[in-house]
Amino acid sequence: GDARMSKITFILGGARSGKSKFATEEAKGIGKKVAFIATCKPMDKEMEERISIHKKARPAEWQTFEEPRDIPLLLKKMSRGFEVIIVDCLTLLVSNLLLDGFKEKDIEENINEILFVLNKLKAHVIIVSNEVGLGIVPDNKLAREFRDIAGRVNQLVAKEANKVFFMTSGLALKIKGEK
Amino acid sequence: GDARMSKITFILGGARSGKSKFATEEAKGIGKKVAFIATCKPMDKEMEERISIHKKARPAEWQTFEEPRDIPLLLKKMSRGFEVIIVDCLTLLVSNLLLDGFKEKDIEENINEILFVLNKLKAHVIIVSNEVGLGIVPDNKLAREFRDIAGRVNQLVAKEANKVFFMTSGLALKIKGEK
Amino acid sequence: GDARMSKITFILGGARSGKSKFATEEAKGIGKKVAFIATCKPMDKEMEERISIHKKARPAEWQTFEEPRDIPLLLKKMSRGFEVIIVDCLTLLVSNLLLDGFKEKDIEENINEILFVLNKLKAHVIIVSNEVGLGIVPDNKLAREFRDIAGRVNQLVAKEANKVFFMTSGLALKIKGEK
Repeated sequence: GDARMSKITFILGGARSGKSKFATEEAKGIGKKVAFIATCKPMDKEMEERISIHKKARPAEWQTFEEPRDIPLLLKKMSRGFEVIIVDCLTLLVSNLLLDGFKEKDIEENINEILFVLNKLKAHVIIVSNEVGLGIVPDNKLAREFRDIAGRVNQLVAKEANKVFFMTSGLALKIKGEK
Repeated sequence: GDARMSKITFILGGARSGKSKFATEEAKGIGKKVAFIATCKPMDKEMEERISIHKKARPAEWQTFEEPRDIPLLLKKMSRGFEVIIVDCLTLLVSNLLLDGFKEKDIEENINEILFVLNKLKAHVIIVSNEVGLGIVPDNKLAREFRDIAGRVNQLVAKEANKVFFMTSGLALKIKGEK
Repeated sequence: GDARMSKITFILGGARSGKSKFATEEAKGIGKKVAFIATCKPMDKEMEERISIHKKARPAEWQTFEEPRDIPLLLKKMSRGFEVIIVDCLTLLVSNLLLDGFKEKDIEENINEILFVLNKLKAHVIIVSNEVGLGIVPDNKLAREFRDIAGRVNQLVAKEANKVFFMTSGLALKIKGEK
């Protein structure tokens, strides 16, 4: 049998494609004890308002954690009582780590560690990420590097996931998992 | 029963993915009385030629309307006799409105008004739009704003549509509607 | 019956979406005599290393051809003994031709010639290409031109292909061909 205890749903899509909303609906369908891990921290007033709007769209009983970098540590410290853990979003985490000076290898290791810790939890896991590789090659070297790492990280998660959805215009297309 | 009289087909895709050609084929399959609403107006000679080539690819009996901004007004004035109305494309309309100084809320209201007017018509409606959110976050603030609004507008239309197709390399993948 | 002797599989996707890996797996499933045509030539040390890593990931008995431009000529000169021919990737070929001063029409003709020659071979053909049209319209005129040509070239190949896969996060979604 499969020793794995958690189930990973991976939600991949473009900007404003309805990823977070879909993640929220999926979580509601699974259970009431939900941890929402936001990888962004408000950096200005505009961002603060946007985050506040998103937060209000989630059920009041959900617990929100804001952690821009050390997700493995957060997961280890978190209560075992959650039925669902949402990580929103992976691409921003990659961006944060890259801006902190992490190299490709370290970032991929970090993601693998997240997947390792998540796999030992009993919770259902929903990971949200951006597909950023379907436009023109960016001029900027850092942007190219980011795009490459983001793509590889998405592959790592998609491989571990039981279900993967590709989102566009608010619609979720299942690209992995039973029909 | 459903009070709605019109049927909306939404065709979403990238640049040069065959959206307009597919819209044309879909329209031909529905009826002969077709209104083609182009949201772009030729701004230079190159554009004029391109538009002219596109126009020649459409049946001669189709009626073309060039309206870069006020689609609701155009729809209200249009003859009731059309079996199919094509709007090509929504993304350019968003871009035109944004450059005219419209704010996000006004643009979304404008799109909702279009959907409201279209829903009262008896015609089949085919709306063409670009997915622009699957590349790297643009440096430019206006481009980021445009990308966000375009994504939200696509969600508004996809929600109302009976059928949604995602296009790439000339192939249409149905992502909403009966199989 | 169909006079065509070859079968074309077209693998389309974003940066770091696992296209080359998927192409490699597909080829392994077909036969042992495989020609791998790489359209990029190493331009610096970093690129050399990357190409070398990719090469090591392929079976040792495969034959690699590095040809950045004249694929039709290469195909004509190649041994008839190959069971599978991989072209990786088309987008880079378009980029090379464009930088060499080729115009849109010439590039499309070049691609059509490749398809014509491939169709006369008995080998299975796997063509890899990037979808680059799902981001924001680029500021740069050459980038816009490239994006347009790349999109049209993808349409040309998808039309001729028996199977088309759209790849994201390492997952292949069949968008053309029997289920």
